[in-house]
Amino acid sequence: MDTELDFDKMAGLIPAVVQDSSTGEVLMVGFMNRPALERTLQGGYVTFYSRTRNQLWTKGETSGNRLRLLSAQTDCDRDTMLLQVQVEGDGLVCHRGTRSCFTEAVPFATAGAQPAPSAEEIR
Amino acid sequence: MDTELDFDKMAGLIPAVVQDSSTGEVLMVGFMNRPALERTLQGGYVTFYSRTRNQLWTKGETSGNRLRLLSAQTDCDRDTMLLQVQVEGDGLVCHRGTRSCFTEAVPFATAGAQPAPSAEEIR
Repeated sequence: MDTELDFDKMAGLIPAVVQDSSTGEVLMVGFMNRPALERTLQGGYVTFYSRTRNQLWTKGETSGNRLRLLSAQTDCDRDTMLLQVQVEGDGLVCHRGTRSCFTEAVPFATAGAQPAPSAEEIR
Repeated sequence: MDTELDFDKMAGLIPAVVQDSSTGEVLMVGFMNRPALERTLQGGYVTFYSRTRNQLWTKGETSGNRLRLLSAQTDCDRDTMLLQVQVEGDGLVCHRGTRSCFTEAVPFATAGAQPAPSAEEIR
Protein backbone atom coordinates (compact mmCIF):
# COMPACT_ATOMS: atom_id res chain seq x y z
CA MET A 1 0.00 0.00 0.00
CA ASP A 2 2.69 2.51 0.97
CA THR A 3 4.40 1.97 -2.36
CA GLU A 4 1.41 3.67 -3.95
CA LEU A 5 2.13 6.88 -2.08
CA ASP A 6 3.74 9.75 -3.96
CA PHE A 7 7.17 10.43 -2.51
CA ASP A 8 8.38 12.21 -5.63
CA LYS A 9 6.91 15.67 -5.07
CA MET A 10 9.22 16.41 -2.18
CA ALA A 11 12.49 14.60 -2.90
CA GLY A 12 11.50 11.37 -1.19
CA LEU A 13 9.54 12.83 1.71
CA ILE A 14 5.90 13.26 2.60
CA PRO A 15 4.44 15.31 5.45
CA ALA A 16 2.69 13.33 8.18
CA VAL A 17 0.12 15.02 10.42
CA VAL A 18 -0.26 13.47 13.86
CA GLN A 19 -3.65 13.86 15.50
CA ASP A 20 -4.75 12.79 18.97
CA SER A 21 -7.31 10.07 18.36
CA SER A 22 -9.47 10.91 21.36
CA THR A 23 -9.50 14.72 21.24
CA GLY A 24 -8.86 15.52 17.57
CA GLU A 25 -6.04 17.84 18.59
CA VAL A 26 -3.27 18.15 16.00
CA LEU A 27 -0.11 17.31 17.93
CA MET A 28 2.70 17.70 15.42
CA VAL A 29 3.76 17.45 11.80
CA GLY A 30 6.80 15.45 10.76
CA PHE A 31 8.23 14.09 7.54
CA MET A 32 8.52 10.50 6.42
CA ASN A 33 10.58 8.85 3.75
CA ARG A 34 9.52 5.43 2.55
CA PRO A 35 11.46 3.50 5.26
CA ALA A 36 9.96 5.71 7.98
CA LEU A 37 6.47 5.08 6.70
CA GLU A 38 7.11 1.35 6.45
CA ARG A 39 8.44 1.19 9.97
CA THR A 40 5.42 3.15 11.19
CA LEU A 41 2.94 0.90 9.45
CA GLN A 42 4.71 -2.31 10.38
CA GLY A 43 5.64 -1.42 13.95
CA GLY A 44 2.53 0.49 14.92
CA TYR A 45 4.45 3.44 16.34
CA VAL A 46 5.11 6.70 14.49
CA THR A 47 8.60 6.96 13.00
CA PHE A 48 9.72 10.05 11.13
CA TYR A 49 12.70 10.88 8.99
CA SER A 50 14.71 13.62 10.65
CA ARG A 51 15.79 16.14 8.02
CA THR A 52 18.36 17.69 10.34
CA ARG A 53 19.87 14.43 11.60
CA ASN A 54 19.38 12.57 8.33
CA GLN A 55 18.09 9.42 10.01
CA LEU A 56 14.95 7.62 11.09
CA TRP A 57 13.52 8.81 14.35
CA THR A 58 10.85 6.97 16.31
CA LYS A 59 9.08 9.70 18.20
CA GLY A 60 9.27 9.12 21.96
CA GLU A 61 11.90 6.39 21.88
CA THR A 62 13.87 8.18 24.58
CA SER A 63 11.10 10.11 26.40
CA GLY A 64 8.68 7.19 26.39
CA ASN A 65 5.99 9.37 24.85
CA ARG A 66 5.62 7.15 21.84
CA LEU A 67 2.78 7.67 19.37
CA ARG A 68 0.79 4.47 19.02
CA LEU A 69 -0.91 4.33 15.64
CA LEU A 70 -4.66 3.82 15.76
CA SER A 71 -5.62 4.75 12.21
CA ALA A 72 -3.97 6.13 9.10
CA GLN A 73 -5.26 7.84 6.00
CA THR A 74 -3.76 9.38 2.91
CA ASP A 75 -5.22 12.21 0.89
CA CYS A 76 -6.58 12.55 -2.62
CA ASP A 77 -3.10 13.28 -4.03
CA ARG A 78 -1.54 10.43 -2.03
CA ASP A 79 1.30 12.72 -1.01
CA THR A 80 0.42 13.30 2.66
CA MET A 81 -0.38 11.09 5.64
CA LEU A 82 -2.81 11.72 8.48
CA LEU A 83 -2.21 9.57 11.56
CA GLN A 84 -4.54 9.21 14.54
CA VAL A 85 -2.59 8.16 17.59
CA GLN A 86 -2.68 7.52 21.29
CA VAL A 87 0.20 9.21 23.09
CA GLU A 88 1.95 6.93 25.56
CA GLY A 89 4.03 7.99 28.56
CA ASP A 90 3.08 11.31 30.10
CA GLY A 91 1.20 12.40 26.99
CA LEU A 92 3.43 15.38 26.28
CA VAL A 93 4.42 15.29 22.63
CA CYS A 94 6.38 18.52 22.36
CA HIS A 95 9.91 18.75 23.70
CA ARG A 96 8.79 21.99 25.32
CA GLY A 97 6.55 20.02 27.67
CA THR A 98 3.18 20.60 26.03
CA ARG A 99 0.70 18.12 24.61
CA SER A 100 0.90 19.65 21.13
CA CYS A 101 3.72 21.37 19.29
CA PHE A 102 1.22 23.94 17.99
CA THR A 103 1.08 26.30 20.92
CA GLU A 104 2.02 29.65 19.41
CA ALA A 105 -0.90 31.69 18.08
CA VAL A 106 -0.28 33.68 14.91
CA PRO A 107 -2.34 36.88 14.65
CA PHE A 108 -4.30 37.68 11.51
CA ALA A 109 -6.79 40.14 10.06
CA THR A 110 -10.34 38.81 10.25
CA ALA A 111 -12.62 38.30 7.27
CA GLY A 112 -16.19 39.52 7.10
CA ALA A 113 -17.95 40.42 10.33
CA GLN A 114 -15.73 38.29 12.54
CA PRO A 115 -14.60 40.38 15.53
CA ALA A 116 -10.88 40.98 15.88
CA PRO A 117 -9.17 38.56 18.26
CA SER A 118 -8.43 39.97 21.67
CA ALA A 119 -4.90 40.69 22.78
CA GLU A 120 -5.13 37.63 24.98
CA GLU A 121 -6.19 35.40 22.09
CA ILE A 122 -3.33 36.52 19.87
CA ARG A 123 -0.75 36.57 22.64
CA MET B 1 4.86 37.87 12.75
CA ASP B 2 5.02 35.71 9.63
CA THR B 3 8.54 36.93 8.97
CA GLU B 4 9.59 34.97 12.05
CA LEU B 5 8.50 31.71 10.46
CA ASP B 6 11.16 29.41 9.07
CA PHE B 7 10.72 29.12 5.32
CA ASP B 8 14.29 27.98 4.76
CA LYS B 9 13.96 24.29 5.57
CA MET B 10 11.89 23.58 2.51
CA ALA B 11 13.09 25.97 -0.16
CA GLY B 12 10.67 28.76 0.71
CA LEU B 13 7.66 26.64 1.62
CA ILE B 14 5.99 25.52 4.82
CA PRO B 15 3.25 22.91 5.18
CA ALA B 16 -0.12 24.21 6.37
CA VAL B 17 -2.61 21.85 8.02
CA VAL B 18 -6.24 22.88 7.66
CA GLN B 19 -8.57 21.73 10.41
CA ASP B 20 -12.34 22.17 10.68
CA SER B 21 -12.83 24.49 13.63
CA SER B 22 -16.09 22.93 14.79
CA THR B 23 -15.37 19.22 14.37
CA GLY B 24 -11.57 19.01 14.62
CA GLU B 25 -11.47 17.06 11.36
CA VAL B 26 -8.27 17.54 9.37
CA LEU B 27 -9.47 18.64 5.95
CA MET B 28 -6.32 19.03 3.88
CA VAL B 29 -2.64 19.91 3.87
CA GLY B 30 -1.22 22.48 1.49
CA PHE B 31 1.98 24.46 1.15
CA MET B 32 2.53 28.16 1.63
CA ASN B 33 5.32 30.44 0.57
CA ARG B 34 5.66 33.77 2.34
CA PRO B 35 3.24 35.65 0.03
CA ALA B 36 0.62 32.89 0.43
CA LEU B 37 0.87 33.09 4.21
CA GLU B 38 0.67 36.89 4.13
CA ARG B 39 -2.39 36.82 1.92
CA THR B 40 -3.98 34.25 4.23
CA LEU B 41 -3.30 36.27 7.37
CA GLN B 42 -4.29 39.58 5.82
CA GLY B 43 -7.32 38.41 3.86
CA GLY B 44 -8.69 35.90 6.34
CA TYR B 45 -9.09 33.15 3.74
CA VAL B 46 -6.64 30.31 3.22
CA THR B 47 -4.31 30.82 0.25
CA PHE B 48 -1.73 28.21 -0.72
CA TYR B 49 1.18 28.16 -3.10
CA SER B 50 0.53 25.60 -5.81
CA ARG B 51 3.71 23.64 -6.44
CA THR B 52 2.38 22.25 -9.71
CA ARG B 53 1.02 25.53 -11.09
CA ASN B 54 3.72 27.68 -9.50
CA GLN B 55 1.28 30.34 -8.35
CA LEU B 56 -0.80 31.45 -5.38
CA TRP B 57 -4.09 29.65 -5.05
CA THR B 58 -6.92 30.76 -2.79
CA LYS B 59 -8.71 27.55 -1.95
CA GLY B 60 -12.34 27.70 -3.09
CA GLU B 61 -12.07 30.80 -5.22
CA THR B 62 -13.87 29.05 -8.05
CA SER B 63 -15.96 26.47 -6.14
CA GLY B 64 -17.04 28.93 -3.45
CA ASN B 65 -15.86 26.54 -0.75
CA ARG B 66 -13.45 29.03 0.71
CA LEU B 67 -11.71 28.37 4.01
CA ARG B 68 -12.39 31.20 6.42
CA LEU B 69 -9.61 31.50 8.95
CA LEU B 70 -10.73 31.38 12.58
CA SER B 71 -7.42 30.74 14.33
CA ALA B 72 -3.81 30.05 13.40
CA GLN B 73 -0.88 28.56 15.25
CA THR B 74 2.69 27.69 14.44
CA ASP B 75 4.72 24.94 16.04
CA CYS B 76 7.80 24.83 18.22
CA ASP B 77 10.12 24.86 15.18
CA ARG B 78 8.12 27.65 13.51
CA ASP B 79 8.22 25.74 10.24
CA THR B 80 4.59 24.56 10.01
CA MET B 81 1.18 26.23 10.27
CA LEU B 82 -2.02 24.86 11.75
CA LEU B 83 -5.16 26.67 10.63
CA GLN B 84 -8.64 26.26 12.10
CA VAL B 85 -11.25 27.23 9.54
CA GLN B 86 -14.91 27.37 8.74
CA VAL B 87 -15.64 25.97 5.29
CA GLU B 88 -17.93 28.19 3.24
CA GLY B 89 -20.12 27.10 0.32
CA ASP B 90 -21.29 23.51 0.39
CA GLY B 91 -18.59 22.53 2.88
CA LEU B 92 -16.90 20.04 0.57
CA VAL B 93 -13.18 20.78 0.61
CA CYS B 94 -11.92 17.98 -1.61
CA HIS B 95 -12.28 18.14 -5.37
CA ARG B 96 -13.58 14.59 -5.12
CA GLY B 97 -16.68 15.85 -3.36
CA THR B 98 -15.87 14.93 0.22
CA ARG B 99 -15.53 17.14 3.29
CA SER B 100 -11.90 16.12 3.83
CA CYS B 101 -9.17 15.13 1.41
CA PHE B 102 -8.13 12.37 3.82
CA THR B 103 -10.57 9.65 2.87
CA GLU B 104 -8.33 6.74 1.97
CA ALA B 105 -7.45 4.43 4.87
CA VAL B 106 -3.94 2.98 4.86
CA PRO B 107 -3.69 -0.46 6.50
CA PHE B 108 -1.05 -1.17 9.11
CA ALA B 109 0.13 -3.79 11.56
CA THR B 110 -1.12 -3.10 15.06
CA ALA B 111 1.10 -2.60 18.11
CA GLY B 112 0.56 -4.40 21.38
CA ALA B 113 -2.82 -5.97 22.05
CA GLN B 114 -4.74 -3.73 19.66
CA PRO B 115 -6.98 -5.90 17.48
CA ALA B 116 -6.39 -5.82 13.74
CA PRO B 117 -8.69 -3.41 11.92
CA SER B 118 -11.60 -5.05 10.18
CA ALA B 119 -11.80 -5.15 6.41
CA GLU B 120 -14.45 -2.46 6.61
CA GLU B 121 -12.28 -0.19 8.71
CA ILE B 122 -9.38 -0.41 6.28
CA ARG B 123 -11.57 -0.28 3.19
